[in-house]
Amino acid sequence: MPLQDHQRDSNGEAEIYELGENGSIIDTQSCTPEYTKRYVDGSTIDWFYEDFKEQEREESQRSLRGARGILVPFFDSMRMWLVVVGTGIGIGLIGAWLDVLVKWLSDLRVGRCTVGFFYNSVSCCSGLKPGECMEWQSWSEYLEVKHIFAESFLQISIYVSLAIALAGSSAILVKIYAPYAFHTGIPEIKAILRGYVLDAFLTPWTLLIKAIGLALSVSSGLSLGKEGPLIHVACCLTFLLTSFFKQFERSEGQKRKLLAASAAAGVSVAFGSPLGGVIFILEELDSFANDSDVMWRGFVASAIAAVVLQYMDPFGTSKLVLFQVTNNSDTWRAFELVPWLALGVIGGVLGSLLIKLNVQVALYRRNTFLNDWPVLEVVGASAITAAISYLVVFTRVQSSELVANLFQECKPLKVDYHGLCNPTANAENIFLLVITALLKIAFTAWTFGIMVPAGIFLPTITIGACLGRAVGILTQTTQTAYAGTWIFQSCPPEPTVRCVSPGFYAVIGASAMLAGVTRMTVSLVVIMFELTGALSHVLPIMISVMTAKWVGDALGKDGIYTVWIAMRGYPWLAPVDYHDQGESAAGIMKPVDELVLIEDGQCTVGELDDMIKTHQYQGFPIVEQRRLVGYITRDTLKCHIGRHLSSESRLGRCSFSNRNHNGDAIDFSDGLEKSILHLRKETPQELIVRIFQRTNFREILFTDRGYLVGLVTKKDIVALLTMHFPHTGSLS
Amino acid sequence: MPLQDHQRDSNGEAEIYELGENGSIIDTQSCTPEYTKRYVDGSTIDWFYEDFKEQEREESQRSLRGARGILVPFFDSMRMWLVVVGTGIGIGLIGAWLDVLVKWLSDLRVGRCTVGFFYNSVSCCSGLKPGECMEWQSWSEYLEVKHIFAESFLQISIYVSLAIALAGSSAILVKIYAPYAFHTGIPEIKAILRGYVLDAFLTPWTLLIKAIGLALSVSSGLSLGKEGPLIHVACCLTFLLTSFFKQFERSEGQKRKLLAASAAAGVSVAFGSPLGGVIFILEELDSFANDSDVMWRGFVASAIAAVVLQYMDPFGTSKLVLFQVTNNSDTWRAFELVPWLALGVIGGVLGSLLIKLNVQVALYRRNTFLNDWPVLEVVGASAITAAISYLVVFTRVQSSELVANLFQECKPLKVDYHGLCNPTANAENIFLLVITALLKIAFTAWTFGIMVPAGIFLPTITIGACLGRAVGILTQTTQTAYAGTWIFQSCPPEPTVRCVSPGFYAVIGASAMLAGVTRMTVSLVVIMFELTGALSHVLPIMISVMTAKWVGDALGKDGIYTVWIAMRGYPWLAPVDYHDQGESAAGIMKPVDELVLIEDGQCTVGELDDMIKTHQYQGFPIVEQRRLVGYITRDTLKCHIGRHLSSESRLGRCSFSNRNHNGDAIDFSDGLEKSILHLRKETPQELIVRIFQRTNFREILFTDRGYLVGLVTKKDIVALLTMHFPHTGSLS
Repeated sequence: MPLQDHQRDSNGEAEIYELGENGSIIDTQSCTPEYTKRYVDGSTIDWFYEDFKEQEREESQRSLRGARGILVPFFDSMRMWLVVVGTGIGIGLIGAWLDVLVKWLSDLRVGRCTVGFFYNSVSCCSGLKPGECMEWQSWSEYLEVKHIFAESFLQISIYVSLAIALAGSSAILVKIYAPYAFHTGIPEIKAILRGYVLDAFLTPWTLLIKAIGLALSVSSGLSLGKEGPLIHVACCLTFLLTSFFKQFERSEGQKRKLLAASAAAGVSVAFGSPLGGVIFILEELDSFANDSDVMWRGFVASAIAAVVLQYMDPFGTSKLVLFQVTNNSDTWRAFELVPWLALGVIGGVLGSLLIKLNVQVALYRRNTFLNDWPVLEVVGASAITAAISYLVVFTRVQSSELVANLFQECKPLKVDYHGLCNPTANAENIFLLVITALLKIAFTAWTFGIMVPAGIFLPTITIGACLGRAVGILTQTTQTAYAGTWIFQSCPPEPTVRCVSPGFYAVIGASAMLAGVTRMTVSLVVIMFELTGALSHVLPIMISVMTAKWVGDALGKDGIYTVWIAMRGYPWLAPVDYHDQGESAAGIMKPVDELVLIEDGQCTVGELDDMIKTHQYQGFPIVEQRRLVGYITRDTLKCHIGRHLSSESRLGRCSFSNRNHNGDAIDFSDGLEKSILHLRKETPQELIVRIFQRTNFREILFTDRGYLVGLVTKKDIVALLTMHFPHTGSLS
Repeated sequence: MPLQDHQRDSNGEAEIYELGENGSIIDTQSCTPEYTKRYVDGSTIDWFYEDFKEQEREESQRSLRGARGILVPFFDSMRMWLVVVGTGIGIGLIGAWLDVLVKWLSDLRVGRCTVGFFYNSVSCCSGLKPGECMEWQSWSEYLEVKHIFAESFLQISIYVSLAIALAGSSAILVKIYAPYAFHTGIPEIKAILRGYVLDAFLTPWTLLIKAIGLALSVSSGLSLGKEGPLIHVACCLTFLLTSFFKQFERSEGQKRKLLAASAAAGVSVAFGSPLGGVIFILEELDSFANDSDVMWRGFVASAIAAVVLQYMDPFGTSKLVLFQVTNNSDTWRAFELVPWLALGVIGGVLGSLLIKLNVQVALYRRNTFLNDWPVLEVVGASAITAAISYLVVFTRVQSSELVANLFQECKPLKVDYHGLCNPTANAENIFLLVITALLKIAFTAWTFGIMVPAGIFLPTITIGACLGRAVGILTQTTQTAYAGTWIFQSCPPEPTVRCVSPGFYAVIGASAMLAGVTRMTVSLVVIMFELTGALSHVLPIMISVMTAKWVGDALGKDGIYTVWIAMRGYPWLAPVDYHDQGESAAGIMKPVDELVLIEDGQCTVGELDDMIKTHQYQGFPIVEQRRLVGYITRDTLKCHIGRHLSSESRLGRCSFSNRNHNGDAIDFSDGLEKSILHLRKETPQELIVRIFQRTNFREILFTDRGYLVGLVTKKDIVALLTMHFPHTGSLS
């Protein structure tokens, strides 16, 4: 029978029984643990319960006869694939649409197309050689302002005011319509996939506002990217699609398995990297790594998303590789390991610096006036970013365009991108690139956390690409200057043949910076070379990623997403290897004296009711003279109490074991949890942590020859693992 | 104090106490579980014990003062990296050397170079255009045999007899010097990495014989490859290097972590795929997926191995990509999904067929006369393979050469490979390719399991490439014949422009076949496109792999390596999701009535001694009137018994709890296992399986309010998971 939904009792908790006409309580069904789970935002799902529900569902389907026995499971599975395919197609379309919109809006800050208002700079000039295009005019040209100062002033004004307008609208939309649509979304997705419940994060409004807000904020020139938010959008899409089918209504476990697949699709669209999407699930969302169904759906979703994106062809290039590096068959030389290792170290150091700065800014934001004026902060940030960016050429242009050009080698026939290939301007270019990188570090540290959808991948790639190119130009200059020395002997003797390829150094720098910030490894390497097509150079990318992560880990244990999860206080257990110092569980468990226990056969229903109202614990151990009988969760206990709360049975004694304590005892024994883990208190802490990481237990009881000695919950372990981080929970 | 090693008692088990001068037993040290582990081949390591030893080691290092406190851990870690780097360099060198040797020996079966005996056909003719080379002569030319029949007869004779000689020597070497050097090695490596002990598998002799035998067997023309065996060789190398350092002497856990890294290096060299090596660890050897140290070392080892291989440049191409596909920027068309899905289905069906055939052949071999004449079987197999191969052109040439050419598109200026690009010979080519594939399926099913080092990747790739190319040619012919119809409308109208690329179909076929045989997914896709450089076509590869795995799983649950692990009876727990039918642990546990228990306070030392000699169990629960006190393993119990086995204390009562049963009780309480898991018997079976899969527990006890009700060991779960396979243990 369906239970009534969402009635709240005085504690704000959902009630779980039906009320009769006169307000009396009707006993609707049994109160076993399986039937009494209610999730509210902020709680964690019970995976055992979810598995049990799945099993029940499959069993009931197996018992069907005839055609129904075949068709019903078939349709079930069809609906699931419908959600997966729908997500893939949807996110591919959204990704393509987003690219087009962002390109147009960003170009609009600089000028417009005389042929039609809705053409961006590329489509306006399609078919014409660069430099010959008269149709694309800057605003000062269009408004026919001739005076040189007025021209510049007009350009800057429009550039900055449009930036403010775009960013401001994004912030207003987020603040009013979908407060969860801000920031990246990856920390929340990771927590949700591990079992955290946050349905408000995945509403259809959030989907809409995040997509629109993302387009606005990216085109406003703020130092952010669209990658993380696209993953959030993909997950919202899946959530929306599952809401159409009754089958998923209460299947929190199933929903999360589908969400993992859509995360892969989001990565696939963000980077044009279908394989990277799947490996992202393997590496980052490891709770599903063993689940081949999830890997399948991830494969399918990311493949479909990539196909749709390629078909929509937002840039007319028909390529999936966003930043195609020039296909050079240059082999690399041994001496290049030196600058590459240097880039790895720089990536690790600056990545850690960026994380620390970002944390400090987030704390400052929370603890000062900025907390009350988020839209104002966004306006201010966009104004300052736009104004300062206008001054340096490499910050003025769109980040994706900059990166695409930094990754390209200089060729004789190729158009020189803002003087990057001018051999006499090497020193100036190095200086400009370094300034760009430093500015972007400062901008990104501030921007990643303001009230707009914002991802951190593209800014990090930009910082790394600038630094990498700078190092590349430096190495190239050094090599041509000292061409004869023994270090550079592996280079061909002719000075006209290029030996060092600065474009590839930009790729290395980007990989190193990303590794330093996100601390991803394998999925990062796959994404990088799906992004660039630089397959023959996978080794240097691997080396720089390794070095950057190693240096970064030495400076600070956590990557940016782990840090934000900790600051928000989500109950997420990092899948890291924990090494204890020889301590046993006795050091972290709550000893039995501090626990609230239920005495089997002694307690009354009334006492239990008071106990529940007094203590907010999620569950209670049941003992009989200190011998452990079992464990009961809060919801199950409330259900049982609710059933017997009439005045007569308030004094009835509860019995949790099958033995009759006395004839009148009320039987609560079907409420005991089936899967309770007992260990000895000498068990090493490492093992306790590992059990919580790899299984879905939420608490462990410690016994000594049958006597309860202590208890530890998953929250205690989360606290243990985040102990080293001083700001845990400061933004919750 | 060091314990004496490897004395065997009457049961064949290692004794663990020292003997004094007059033969009396000296109590050398405590008998806690941590000090009494002895591993013999066939046992499984205790991961908790290994972790404990690591911890002790780190603690003793932390307590050092001054310079020692810094240098000692530093040198420890240096030694570990030395092993990793040494393995990378070593396997890179071995891989390069192997390539050169195989090329030369294979060519020798066809002809020789007049310039010098040790030149292979490529280096003999270096610098000359193909077709102009007079220096490379077939044997009949060299021996100046003119008569046409004698010429052919001589060629075939030399071809077959050299094949027999090479394969036969390989088999003789393996049989006499290193019996564990036969077959692929991957099943054993997977079991060893999960904790199985099989030191005889990784001896220096095995390393030498496997490498030499591999070169001999590959060049003998048998249908096998070098990939799996190279992984075995890499692991042997690591084992050898660890034997030089005292630090690893008893560190079975540490050794396995290093072995995982060397497995990555082996994959890297086998396929020129450094990234594939690391993802191989992630996917196949999942016990270490959470261990970032292992991933690091895997990264480093495979990167170094790939660098060394590229530096050695065995083929003068300076490429890492072994089967470079022609870099075509052709996009693919929608109608091509039909033949690609067909190839996926074919790969799944034929892959399952190959596995089933291989199992039947292996059983036949074990149960008939072939079991006693392995060398004869090898000779026969190589003779038949060589003789039949000579008749079909595509089987006569070396597999790697065939695959490389099948992956290449036909170009006007390119040399036609045995008529493959002849447009009038399409039907003949399709026929020949299909015959080749079927022959190779038969050969491979027989060869994979004979007494020589043999891998299955390259034959599988060859089978798939042949079928793929056949389907590609068929599609191309169909498209050119019906060029105007609506299906093919996406093709350019000019008949001279190629629309369908059969070379890429060969890549798809190879991927599908590999997926059908090995059931690998993500690592396979990465390996395939690192192997071919076909990055822009990663989507079709993903689609065909998915389809093949799906079809293959529908026909038979296990891949080839899982099947061999089951047949050999290794205690390896497949990391698959197990779905029970609602059964609880009560269905698989051994009930308490059937267990051999120790009664706390009642047993005597003499009784324990008899019990150990009678029952071969790995451990015994200790109860006190059916209440569970704890659990003690066999080794620890033997240690305690050994300490008190003099005639006076034979009658002494043993006490496992700290309470004094009576004044004379001998205290055995420090022998209890610290980490014992208790669950209720209503726990679902799925959960039990998952706990064993994801943690390192070797047994779980079931209690009900403190009373022992049953026990289940990891072996029981292994049996449960392999229940569907009828031939488990048939080759052990």
